[in-house]
Amino acid sequence: MSVDFNTLAKQFCEFYYQTFDTDRSQLGNLYRDHSMLTFTGTQHQGAQAIVEKLVGLPFGQVRHKISDIDAQPASAQGGDVIVLVTGELCVDGDNPLPYAQVFHLIPDGSSYYVFNDIFRLNA
Amino acid sequence: MSVDFNTLAKQFCEFYYQTFDTDRSQLGNLYRDHSMLTFTGTQHQGAQAIVEKLVGLPFGQVRHKISDIDAQPASAQGGDVIVLVTGELCVDGDNPLPYAQVFHLIPDGSSYYVFNDIFRLNA
Repeated sequence: MSVDFNTLAKQFCEFYYQTFDTDRSQLGNLYRDHSMLTFTGTQHQGAQAIVEKLVGLPFGQVRHKISDIDAQPASAQGGDVIVLVTGELCVDGDNPLPYAQVFHLIPDGSSYYVFNDIFRLNA
Repeated sequence: MSVDFNTLAKQFCEFYYQTFDTDRSQLGNLYRDHSMLTFTGTQHQGAQAIVEKLVGLPFGQVRHKISDIDAQPASAQGGDVIVLVTGELCVDGDNPLPYAQVFHLIPDGSSYYVFNDIFRLNA
């Protein structure tokens, strides 16, 4: 069953942030060897390097609170989707920090993987 | 002369926001008929509809102050680029509003056009 890009974006973000906030070592399946993460300016390529970066972040308790999810088809013919998420990052009981994150999702069989991932605090 | 994607992103953003802040009716050349703009949740497709939306915004004096520009190649083979901009929008002397904006830039001869454009206030 195909889903529209808005539903896909919402489902992906719910899964991504729920996984991030409970056990972010499990996020590797969402990336491939050519995937890219730019995290507050540092660049990482490949599922392994990306998960190492995420796992190594100095967060204890972490929670993403989504404000808005906007999605668009990323090409005229393909099924890839661009998603912009804005929200707040809550870490270890500190004040919430506004953030923005872009995902470029590529279809892969019946699923999707993350090709581009850019995260920025917007404080 | 080819430029790397970071340089392209920086040059594009400087041109885009300078044009926006001086005469945003001139932004139409950056879009095509299949281009998409999602502006704080409202969707617009095509250069004409996009420029009409931008020109119709109830801004008098407007200034974008860029905080960060992050870019990544958006495909393994092509020359397209995804850009995440975070910054502040200053309108008519009101308090600056944090925003995030994504551009998906597609090569077109010696230049680029905007295929995806998503803008969100992040206040």
